[in-house]
Amino acid sequence: MGPGFDIVKAGHIEFLVTNLREARRFYVDTLGFVVTESDKSHVYLRGLEDRQHHCLTLTQSDSPGVGHFAFRVATEEGLKAIEKLAKSKGIYTRWVEANQERGQGRALLVEDMFGFPVEFYSKMAQEEWMLQKFQNYTVAKVMRLDHFNIMLPDAATAYAWYVKDLGFGCTEVTETEGPRPDLWAAWLRRKHTCHDIALTTGKGPRVHHAGFTVSDRGSIMDAADLLASSGYLKSMERGPGRHGVSNAFFLYLRDPDGNRIELYTGDYISADPDWIPIRWKLNDPQRQTFWGAPTPASWFNDAMLVRSPRTRRFASLTAPKIKDRPDYLLSAR
Amino acid sequence: MGPGFDIVKAGHIEFLVTNLREARRFYVDTLGFVVTESDKSHVYLRGLEDRQHHCLTLTQSDSPGVGHFAFRVATEEGLKAIEKLAKSKGIYTRWVEANQERGQGRALLVEDMFGFPVEFYSKMAQEEWMLQKFQNYTVAKVMRLDHFNIMLPDAATAYAWYVKDLGFGCTEVTETEGPRPDLWAAWLRRKHTCHDIALTTGKGPRVHHAGFTVSDRGSIMDAADLLASSGYLKSMERGPGRHGVSNAFFLYLRDPDGNRIELYTGDYISADPDWIPIRWKLNDPQRQTFWGAPTPASWFNDAMLVRSPRTRRFASLTAPKIKDRPDYLLSAR
Amino acid sequence: MGPGFDIVKAGHIEFLVTNLREARRFYVDTLGFVVTESDKSHVYLRGLEDRQHHCLTLTQSDSPGVGHFAFRVATEEGLKAIEKLAKSKGIYTRWVEANQERGQGRALLVEDMFGFPVEFYSKMAQEEWMLQKFQNYTVAKVMRLDHFNIMLPDAATAYAWYVKDLGFGCTEVTETEGPRPDLWAAWLRRKHTCHDIALTTGKGPRVHHAGFTVSDRGSIMDAADLLASSGYLKSMERGPGRHGVSNAFFLYLRDPDGNRIELYTGDYISADPDWIPIRWKLNDPQRQTFWGAPTPASWFNDAMLVRSPRTRRFASLTAPKIKDRPDYLLSAR
Amino acid sequence: MGPGFDIVKAGHIEFLVTNLREARRFYVDTLGFVVTESDKSHVYLRGLEDRQHHCLTLTQSDSPGVGHFAFRVATEEGLKAIEKLAKSKGIYTRWVEANQERGQGRALLVEDMFGFPVEFYSKMAQEEWMLQKFQNYTVAKVMRLDHFNIMLPDAATAYAWYVKDLGFGCTEVTETEGPRPDLWAAWLRRKHTCHDIALTTGKGPRVHHAGFTVSDRGSIMDAADLLASSGYLKSMERGPGRHGVSNAFFLYLRDPDGNRIELYTGDYISADPDWIPIRWKLNDPQRQTFWGAPTPASWFNDAMLVRSPRTRRFASLTAPKIKDRPDYLLSAR
Repeated sequence: MGPGFDIVKAGHIEFLVTNLREARRFYVDTLGFVVTESDKSHVYLRGLEDRQHHCLTLTQSDSPGVGHFAFRVATEEGLKAIEKLAKSKGIYTRWVEANQERGQGRALLVEDMFGFPVEFYSKMAQEEWMLQKFQNYTVAKVMRLDHFNIMLPDAATAYAWYVKDLGFGCTEVTETEGPRPDLWAAWLRRKHTCHDIALTTGKGPRVHHAGFTVSDRGSIMDAADLLASSGYLKSMERGPGRHGVSNAFFLYLRDPDGNRIELYTGDYISADPDWIPIRWKLNDPQRQTFWGAPTPASWFNDAMLVRSPRTRRFASLTAPKIKDRPDYLLSAR
Repeated sequence: MGPGFDIVKAGHIEFLVTNLREARRFYVDTLGFVVTESDKSHVYLRGLEDRQHHCLTLTQSDSPGVGHFAFRVATEEGLKAIEKLAKSKGIYTRWVEANQERGQGRALLVEDMFGFPVEFYSKMAQEEWMLQKFQNYTVAKVMRLDHFNIMLPDAATAYAWYVKDLGFGCTEVTETEGPRPDLWAAWLRRKHTCHDIALTTGKGPRVHHAGFTVSDRGSIMDAADLLASSGYLKSMERGPGRHGVSNAFFLYLRDPDGNRIELYTGDYISADPDWIPIRWKLNDPQRQTFWGAPTPASWFNDAMLVRSPRTRRFASLTAPKIKDRPDYLLSAR
Repeated sequence: MGPGFDIVKAGHIEFLVTNLREARRFYVDTLGFVVTESDKSHVYLRGLEDRQHHCLTLTQSDSPGVGHFAFRVATEEGLKAIEKLAKSKGIYTRWVEANQERGQGRALLVEDMFGFPVEFYSKMAQEEWMLQKFQNYTVAKVMRLDHFNIMLPDAATAYAWYVKDLGFGCTEVTETEGPRPDLWAAWLRRKHTCHDIALTTGKGPRVHHAGFTVSDRGSIMDAADLLASSGYLKSMERGPGRHGVSNAFFLYLRDPDGNRIELYTGDYISADPDWIPIRWKLNDPQRQTFWGAPTPASWFNDAMLVRSPRTRRFASLTAPKIKDRPDYLLSAR
Repeated sequence: MGPGFDIVKAGHIEFLVTNLREARRFYVDTLGFVVTESDKSHVYLRGLEDRQHHCLTLTQSDSPGVGHFAFRVATEEGLKAIEKLAKSKGIYTRWVEANQERGQGRALLVEDMFGFPVEFYSKMAQEEWMLQKFQNYTVAKVMRLDHFNIMLPDAATAYAWYVKDLGFGCTEVTETEGPRPDLWAAWLRRKHTCHDIALTTGKGPRVHHAGFTVSDRGSIMDAADLLASSGYLKSMERGPGRHGVSNAFFLYLRDPDGNRIELYTGDYISADPDWIPIRWKLNDPQRQTFWGAPTPASWFNDAMLVRSPRTRRFASLTAPKIKDRPDYLLSAR
């Protein structure tokens, strides 16, 4: 699976929100994320299965988007090896001191060649395990962060970076039609699930969504009931349904700022080292939704801006050279 | 609840199909309906919970539609009383001799004032209960017929016939907006569930769908998986989702001829005699789908023609005087 | 189905509890029953699906047991007809004035020939429907009262009273083995489910349990998780499992006073008037638990004492003349 | 996590069965394992999620038991490194030639110091993925092999071998009571789940069970229904229930020969390298079954004999020096 630097898994993501109280009502009071700690401008959240300090940080900000997303690395040596690799590629790097981000050890913050703010960290404080504290569950049962889905103009180059340089395995791909298909999307993993990160073709750099695992498909429907009766009807952008890619059940939500998360459950274990990627065609109607329900245009149009670690401003966007959605949705653009 | 003539429940429905073999592959091989018996031009089906000969008859025919739908009545005296009532209203009636429809005793066939072919019967042969023969289940787990949903231009007059003359109770209604709302739809019951028949405003007389109860919401999703991988992707017209009206989970299917059924589960017990109808506004986005997902235009456009017991031809259609769908869907007509 | 007096359904039950606060923590804070109102010595509870004032009353008392259980009757005339019938049988009757039991109209309280305190009522205040207020659900999802299960020495005589005199239908029976089997238990219904009351052979008069319907089998397991992590591990007496009789999923609980309830879901609709009772043999290992798990001895030994409406004291007990449990459990007595 | 030799996961297990036809009816016709291939004396099975040739082999034999269990290793070099390690410990090793076990590359067969026949392999033929062929699912939905559970007199020594020498991570442990607790059981993993192998104190070497992942907790109950109505009532030894350890839902089955499998679902992802083992006390009533249901004595008494790769005879048994079950079950021995 390539070098790997012992990258372990998708670790956490920072969402920028314009109203911390409203965001807290959505993520904590309704979806049941567990608050590890909070201050005036941050809320650090974890899932019911998490033993680590946070997998989602809400940061008070002037406009929504993503501050950074982060991969956990097994050792501090791994961080240094990534720094070396990054520098060899001319990528911007910066060390984030321990506890600058609450509960986290020294971390390497990178702006990769695609413009994404990516953090690598190896140490994080351990917290109480809520897994069997069922008395604290809400019906949505958010267990843990599962993956990031990012959108960028050139998926093929990003694929090379993640697979060849960073050592991710590829579980599934989507290709365009025709005799010389382009890589349109790829699902890549370090931990033994379908993915830690998905690369999708589109205007970018943007983060399309962060996927959080829920207990089972019943939780997906319970969450839909809960959201629909808690004033979040419009938050439900797509689903519930089953994916073709990943085979998982899903419900896509927009938080009060429009940031997008996926409630996700039911993919597979991908530990085998000789895994041959499952191949999908972009226009296959069962690729996105196995049951055939159409995807709303907003799902292709909207994604979260990312804040540059260098400039502290949102990265400007570039359009892809190939189409950014299936043919049957091109008219809905 | 009015006179009632001891009408017991929605009993069975006859679907006209153009290819009995294809229909059988859909209903039996895939959805797991139990075959009680069959001949060259009919297949008599029941659900896993049914103890009666059939709740769905497939009849080979030149074009699709509904031959008749039928209510079970507690006694033969009830049938005669309905005959008397029908004659007093000038409604066409005819006796169907015992076993002319397999497994059924003498029955009264009516063409009601709205043009629907409705059968009333009191005796039906009992069959083996498959409820605990789990070795024969498919994953769709169709338990029994639950209700009919019919579409007609004048729901208010049909409401009076069913509630005042036939003694149905009303559990829920949909009304148009405005200071003088029209009755747009009504859910009526004899058995102690949400409904045995729903009356919906639209071009009619047509049968919109027959609803069959499945085991639980997991069965709805299992059925979607099964259909999607059995060549019936296009059969899934709407859902899975949860209804506002009835609170049930649903998946609407079109059989190979376009006849429509609903897989349905999770409504409530309505035994209380002082039940006050739940009132919905037509334009409430949660009325049809509690989670807010839009309903496809075909759901409002398409319904099944009904064959006249008198002329043996399909009833001609009349358009309603009020709108036949919510305002937000009028553009999709 | 016999006369019926329009008995509608099992309506409510009064549990005597020695510590109202503890009982409330169990029923309300944990299981999620909805409080309609309460005073110093009573808490009136309903389920998420209930539209009526209460289906369970907790009454502060010196010792646990059952104050009374009640059937809803369609009309006031029905109450009078039952009074007349009761008097003709020499049964003690008394009128309970309107609102003496909160939310309830004038009711007839009876001590039947078996010693049970049974109330018949026709009017009850209507309350807000919580069915689609999912934001208030706990994971246990208790929807409504379903049935009473009573234990008495002579099931056959009670069967005659309920079926012939009160007009209940019989859905299932259990008989002893041998050429001349005794009726050991019967499941009787007015509403269209498996039962409103079950009669079981045992030392009596006692109430074995009250059954409350939960949303689906997932709710049964969620409730088990919740109870196990809320300090109620010992409350779970039997289950989760599936019954042979009724086909329902179950979990039997003892409240802090030892009063027993069943969380119950997944039986069938029994509307057909020609329903032939399903017959089980007492020693069939799948009768009680379809999956074969043994029933604990306490389930046969323990039941709730009933308070006499006449004497205000608990009814004294009589042992049955036939065995009170399957042979394979006789040694565990 | 120690050296690891890139051990990937629990790979497959060979069950010895005395009647291949009966075994096939249980595993294939009922539980829905997929047959990859078979010959006169073997059936090679995989789960619905498996992409590899087999995870369970049934081998016709004179008496039941386990032929061997096997771990997948990432590379051939890994196999050689394990051979070297084994030889340094004086452990018996033998190479199994490619395709001697169908579909498998060259493999190293070991008799470890505890007497277990353990195979290490790195290559296996890939097969059609049935994951989204829902039309072939039975209701039990067996997805893949998850883990082995082995019983041996000295869990602490085996812990050292697996963790220090073979590089497994430890997710949970059970210890005896008292000031100087003994290690009683350990759950060890290479793939990112709760475990690939569990070590339990008892008479050994024996294999207690092989655990197979099913789709979700509904599948556990569907499987129970299916088995109960397919003549396998007595096959269900324990469950359904939820474990304390692993947090998973379970159902333990005995095949027609008494070999034991677990249907298992709902544990967690354990990718974090700093995972601190969850600690349980042997006498904690929620350790085995979170809901408190007692474990039958057979669960502690019975386990599968293992066939020595050297002598081809079943390994003789040694009793442990510490108790082999919780105190509350000692009387049931």
